Amino acid sequence: MVATLVDAVRRTPGVRLLDHSSDPAHNRSVLTMAGDAPALKAAVLALFGAALPAIDLRTHSGEHPRIGAVDVVPFVPIEGATMADCVALARETAQAVAQRFQVPIYLYEDAATDPARRNLEDIRRGEFEGLAGKMATAGWTPDFGPGAPHPSAGASAIGARMPLIAYNINLATDRLDVAKQIAAAVRSSSGGFRYVKAMGVRLEHRGIVQVSMNLTNYEKTPILRVFEAVKTEAARRGVNVLESEIVGLVPAAALIGTAQHVLQLTSFTPEQILENRLRETSI
Amino acid sequence: MVATLVDAVRRTPGVRLLDHSSDPAHNRSVLTMAGDAPALKAAVLALFGAALPAIDLRTHSGEHPRIGAVDVVPFVPIEGATMADCVALARETAQAVAQRFQVPIYLYEDAATDPARRNLEDIRRGEFEGLAGKMATAGWTPDFGPGAPHPSAGASAIGARMPLIAYNINLATDRLDVAKQIAAAVRSSSGGFRYVKAMGVRLEHRGIVQVSMNLTNYEKTPILRVFEAVKTEAARRGVNVLESEIVGLVPAAALIGTAQHVLQLTSFTPEQILENRLRETSI
Repeated sequence: MVATLVDAVRRTPGVRLLDHSSDPAHNRSVLTMAGDAPALKAAVLALFGAALPAIDLRTHSGEHPRIGAVDVVPFVPIEGATMADCVALARETAQAVAQRFQVPIYLYEDAATDPARRNLEDIRRGEFEGLAGKMATAGWTPDFGPGAPHPSAGASAIGARMPLIAYNINLATDRLDVAKQIAAAVRSSSGGFRYVKAMGVRLEHRGIVQVSMNLTNYEKTPILRVFEAVKTEAARRGVNVLESEIVGLVPAAALIGTAQHVLQLTSFTPEQILENRLRETSI
Repeated sequence: MVATLVDAVRRTPGVRLLDHSSDPAHNRSVLTMAGDAPALKAAVLALFGAALPAIDLRTHSGEHPRIGAVDVVPFVPIEGATMADCVALARETAQAVAQRFQVPIYLYEDAATDPARRNLEDIRRGEFEGLAGKMATAGWTPDFGPGAPHPSAGASAIGARMPLIAYNINLATDRLDVAKQIAAAVRSSSGGFRYVKAMGVRLEHRGIVQVSMNLTNYEKTPILRVFEAVKTEAARRGVNVLESEIVGLVPAAALIGTAQHVLQLTSFTPEQILENRLRETSI
């Protein structure tokens, strides 16, 4: 069944499928694709077209919270695209999906039209099972599509957000309390940086602890600022930072920005990067 | 005349001319091109073919030291090419040029066959005017080509080297002596880092001073290490670093490496950079 969805994306001209993974416990698949705006819109429409006949939320269960057959579609700006481009694409795609498939759509994150619906967690609260009741209450009229759930496909969240960076800092200690205290100090929910989610975890096999983080906007909360804050908080507790790691992908700009930041680089432009020049210029 | 040389490169298939500049005082032109090994070899042969009928060193003068009509050809590894690739290409190109044009060639820097001929300055010493005498002395038999200068075109240096980074650090002071002392502390020639050339200069219009540097191997002498050393030397003299700047182009790897360095990033690979994944992978 997942193969049908993957094929729908693969067959869309101008779209490259970068990654796909399925988690049986979550009963959920994630597809990552890249392309320009019209190609991505076409791919998302193709994906809904393949998913709706195949997935019935009335008989679906899994550990991960969800409101729809196509639960969430985030557009992420890369390679010269701006957040404004992604917000426009999210709106346009949401409108087309709602019209073609009669699925209610909530715009979220940077594409949200209501601050109360900015966070995906708030949109998902109650899940598919609670959706009909929730949609009948004030503030939950969708941005596009019918005012009640699609019978089998529920609703979808479509939005725009910055690329997320999974970033972990390992501490040269086995004291889990220290990792938890530092996580609390740097994460938004307990007074830390606006775009940091963090928790302290134990790396049993190595006998050390880790501050495990998601950086949800590396432009507004840069990696280096987070690293330095963790280092300072660790030092305050007599603990050293052992190393850090990026899990999965990271936009080049996040690392280039880190270099600019630490070197106090002034008047630097992306055109100064040799590889950019190679790709863009021929005189 | 320069237009003829530029055209020779432009017309070579598979080669992209990235930049060219001519300095009237130096009476010298610099062409920057990119391509794979066979294309670059063909472009250099085409350049010699265009330059030799056009440039006669017997009637040439200019402020910049030179030994030949095509004075120097450095091959620089970028985008996955290794230094070994560039050394091999330098040797192959040198042999082809010597054979086709009867120009003596000295291999230099990483392609050098003799440590005494590694530095371009040593090869150039005496310039075209002293070349016949120099080539007759021990140790100056060229790597390829005749044992005496080409009558009008002299000799050429062909080699392989790392991309050079022009890197300046501005100090929050007008004390030129501090900039000069710091330059002396970090440059190779007076006991500093192996791949740093540095001098202290005054930025008159801003009322500050600068440590002006060339970093000749950012892998072995990383930017961040140099920045930190300058900062420490400045602090020792009660001076702060105001900012730094990269002049012209810089390989992405030098900035990515800076980020890895400061973040203590472990087990990071270039495949984790989103833009690299976009260009390389289609699943």
